[in-house]
Amino acid sequence: MPKASKPARTQPRPAQPQVRAADDIPLRVIPLGGVGEIGKNMYVFEYGDDIVVIDCGLMFPDEEMFGIDLVIPDVTYLRERRDNVRAFLITHAHEDHVGGLPYILPEFPGVPVYASTLARGLLGNKVKEHKLHNNPLRSLEPGDELVIGPFTVMPFRVGHSIPDAMGIALRTPAGTVVHTGDFKFDHTPVDGKMSDFAILARLGEEGVTCLLSDSTRAENPGYTPSERTVGEAFREIMEPLEGRVIVATFASNIARIQQVLDAAAAFGRKVAVAGRSMEQNFRIATDLGYLTYEPGMIVAKDRIGETPGNQLVVVTTGSQGEPMSGLARMANRDHRYVEIEPGDTVIVSASPIPGNEEYVARTIDNLFKAGANVIYHAIRHAHVSGHASQEELKLMLNLTRPKHFIPMHGEFRMQVQHGRLAIETGVLPEDVFIIENGTPIELFADGSARRGQPVPAGYVFVDGLSVGDVGEVVLRDRRALANDGMFMVVVTVDKQTGNVIGSPEIITRGFVHLNEQDPIMAEAVARIVAAIENPGEHISEVALLKSQIKDGVSRYLYEQTKRRPMVFPVVVEV
Amino acid sequence: MPKASKPARTQPRPAQPQVRAADDIPLRVIPLGGVGEIGKNMYVFEYGDDIVVIDCGLMFPDEEMFGIDLVIPDVTYLRERRDNVRAFLITHAHEDHVGGLPYILPEFPGVPVYASTLARGLLGNKVKEHKLHNNPLRSLEPGDELVIGPFTVMPFRVGHSIPDAMGIALRTPAGTVVHTGDFKFDHTPVDGKMSDFAILARLGEEGVTCLLSDSTRAENPGYTPSERTVGEAFREIMEPLEGRVIVATFASNIARIQQVLDAAAAFGRKVAVAGRSMEQNFRIATDLGYLTYEPGMIVAKDRIGETPGNQLVVVTTGSQGEPMSGLARMANRDHRYVEIEPGDTVIVSASPIPGNEEYVARTIDNLFKAGANVIYHAIRHAHVSGHASQEELKLMLNLTRPKHFIPMHGEFRMQVQHGRLAIETGVLPEDVFIIENGTPIELFADGSARRGQPVPAGYVFVDGLSVGDVGEVVLRDRRALANDGMFMVVVTVDKQTGNVIGSPEIITRGFVHLNEQDPIMAEAVARIVAAIENPGEHISEVALLKSQIKDGVSRYLYEQTKRRPMVFPVVVEV
Repeated sequence: MPKASKPARTQPRPAQPQVRAADDIPLRVIPLGGVGEIGKNMYVFEYGDDIVVIDCGLMFPDEEMFGIDLVIPDVTYLRERRDNVRAFLITHAHEDHVGGLPYILPEFPGVPVYASTLARGLLGNKVKEHKLHNNPLRSLEPGDELVIGPFTVMPFRVGHSIPDAMGIALRTPAGTVVHTGDFKFDHTPVDGKMSDFAILARLGEEGVTCLLSDSTRAENPGYTPSERTVGEAFREIMEPLEGRVIVATFASNIARIQQVLDAAAAFGRKVAVAGRSMEQNFRIATDLGYLTYEPGMIVAKDRIGETPGNQLVVVTTGSQGEPMSGLARMANRDHRYVEIEPGDTVIVSASPIPGNEEYVARTIDNLFKAGANVIYHAIRHAHVSGHASQEELKLMLNLTRPKHFIPMHGEFRMQVQHGRLAIETGVLPEDVFIIENGTPIELFADGSARRGQPVPAGYVFVDGLSVGDVGEVVLRDRRALANDGMFMVVVTVDKQTGNVIGSPEIITRGFVHLNEQDPIMAEAVARIVAAIENPGEHISEVALLKSQIKDGVSRYLYEQTKRRPMVFPVVVEV
Repeated sequence: MPKASKPARTQPRPAQPQVRAADDIPLRVIPLGGVGEIGKNMYVFEYGDDIVVIDCGLMFPDEEMFGIDLVIPDVTYLRERRDNVRAFLITHAHEDHVGGLPYILPEFPGVPVYASTLARGLLGNKVKEHKLHNNPLRSLEPGDELVIGPFTVMPFRVGHSIPDAMGIALRTPAGTVVHTGDFKFDHTPVDGKMSDFAILARLGEEGVTCLLSDSTRAENPGYTPSERTVGEAFREIMEPLEGRVIVATFASNIARIQQVLDAAAAFGRKVAVAGRSMEQNFRIATDLGYLTYEPGMIVAKDRIGETPGNQLVVVTTGSQGEPMSGLARMANRDHRYVEIEPGDTVIVSASPIPGNEEYVARTIDNLFKAGANVIYHAIRHAHVSGHASQEELKLMLNLTRPKHFIPMHGEFRMQVQHGRLAIETGVLPEDVFIIENGTPIELFADGSARRGQPVPAGYVFVDGLSVGDVGEVVLRDRRALANDGMFMVVVTVDKQTGNVIGSPEIITRGFVHLNEQDPIMAEAVARIVAAIENPGEHISEVALLKSQIKDGVSRYLYEQTKRRPMVFPVVVEV
């Protein structure tokens, strides 16, 4: 079909939205997972009284979120429409797409979660661990068609760094939207399962009102290489080696693990699996038939020491330098089963995710210090991305030929680049929506679209056992304590005379000066006593006395040190 | 001279050090600036009772050094040999090579600082600001020969991202060492001043006992492109533009600023300079003749608003996303003279230094959000490194043909790669020394070398006005406070009866739970009171009472929240 025959895409749209009939219900597309940041993914699709949610990710805290364990999306909008939520649809079981489920599902009892076989296998652990038994886990495989209220859900296979990853098309009365999930087009996938070009092309011919597509690698020109190229790299690296080989990669990258197994087999090496999540995923993927190998080639991790180095490959976690991971423990000589020795070769089969660069660098440095040779991203690529580069993104755009385009995932600048690619392929500039978290895009059956009123959206912090108790105030205090520490003053005052009893007690932590014999401390005490002994007019009030101590001490400490510790005055009246 | 005629380099060294005569004095080379980390550079060269120091840098704190402003080298070793220190020799005036001087020079009154013309100009500000008038600032230009005790100091010109950068060769009775400084070989430098290949080759022919060479880019194959290529990129980017152009780069990169001036002139644009350090350096470099331009083409920054966009280039700081810099302020719509508007093009002429990636990313995102088009490292190179890549490093090795090799600067893994390059060019593996901070290498006149006993070395933290008061204990407390906050309990106890008077007061900051009405708080108070009312055997002691409160509260809070705030018990006896 020649391009010109698809009028919705090339005809100018009226500048003003038309007056609409009451029954002209829009499909509302709402990002709740934090647009413009890498980490968590959650899109809400709402038509009338029906909502389906695609993915429910978590993000890891950035360096200014002190003490925070995890960050999950604020789902106030869904909570207020609890009865309308029909399903959670999962594209694939990476943490940034499913990690929020344990915290969010309990608020939506009975709502089913749909996912493909491997994703269900991996989610099984979460279900057990977090007792998520109130939400049925149902099958949704590439190629299925599933009707949920006004939505016809059509998952389609895409390539990614985990098997059975899917994009999801939704047919609705307001038109068809395509959500790519995380994807790349791998023409030679390790498992032989090709991305579903046919369904994308068919949807494109029928007419797609809006494409939501993965922007993670939109800055990268050309094509992302096939996962298969990593297997070739593994074989080239391993071939001349006499010593032990240790490969670190993502526990969920089953295709990568398969390629480690294949390369090991090619050189008569056995494979040991180390690291809790790696072992868990290895077992699940094996049980579900996603990994194939001779059973005899697996070495139990507690027998690693008994296997000659030239017959062994260890596959482990920690390619991001995560402090508790297998590789970081090996690098710190703190691993129960693997002690790094000269002659070992470590392959870090990953690129550092933004924010992890320093962890990765430290791990590599420590491995070198321990005597290993390390093969890592800067000197040799034993890794490819699971995300599409520019040519693939353009192919996705040209297969689906959307009227409207929403770049999703990736940071703001990547979405800007992706928007430019869309315009290059023929989407009108005014039909590209780069949207803030919580901003709905409303798509109408006539092909028009508009931004809706923002809905509540943001972060919820998970800190220890608490979900949502830690907010900006607590974080601000943590930041202040982290920068300049604290300085506590305890004063006992005679209620009758107003005189100080004994000497004020000072407790300080994390402040510049440690020693309570320090002249600065002595002078601070003298000033406090003087302030109380020579009170101003209103000094009889404890609250005022406290604020006077606080201000005086803060000012004095700043003059002396140019630091502002948190000052806590305690006044005990007796 | 054929390679084989240089026996010191290819003959095996005896495995055991020979017995030496008492007058066989080694040249000791000691890194004090923190080997294996990017940021500060300081090498001590000691022969008998004479010491010269090359560079004296600072590093910026990493993300775990809460509240620390700067990090400088621990110079205990020099302090203990104060009378032996003859000179500080400066290769170039970047902060990681001279930033430690203001904190360290005051301990070495009278010791001269030698530097080239531009470096002296830039150091002039530090001298004024920090009143460093006790240390004469003396001229040392490329090609000079200067005798300082047993050292003949021979600075030689190298290419780098600041003009007049030098390496320094030291002739000593124990042989010649070559310290490259930060360098690259630029065959078409913007200022036309070529690296001094002749002196390097001559030294190589005479015999170099040890080369210390810049490892920053040792992971990078090939050659680092000429600075001149950036000028071409500037012209290509600017040519089609109708709007304003804003270029962010390092304030010290005078060649880069020259190229901005040249590109602006080519398209009839005027140039405004914004950002304190950029303005300062621009003025100094102009005064000293390092920048050439038509005076009429400079626009005062407060007249930026009056200049039509298509006739203006603004050059500013902030290419690393530093929060207080010109570019970050523009991105945050907080700049006094420049408000970003659609049509502006921002060129970020730098790559993110490791550790700065997130700052840079945030700044670029905010510039896009403000409506600018941003040209940055990931999409178009308008920057080249000032450090040599592998082919240049091999050229340096083959020019100087050292017996021994110490990779310097860069992180450990980069030094490992650099060591491999040295071995490829013919240095014997046992003659490559990858050394820890404070580990001396002792070089003898007979060509032998050995590791000496480590000397005191490490970090000194600068925090506000304090230098060295903040140590690991303070940082550990800051870390604990940052993660889980603090929880203070104030209890007043009747000295006679041992009973609690009133209710314990709780003050908490940065902890999970904010609200003192929270059931957790009430229960904590109840537990404290119970502990005191039902004391154990030794409870009459305040110290024991405190520790009992602390342990009980800590345990309770951990059970309830899985967090460990710092608990401070205060017991007031009346």
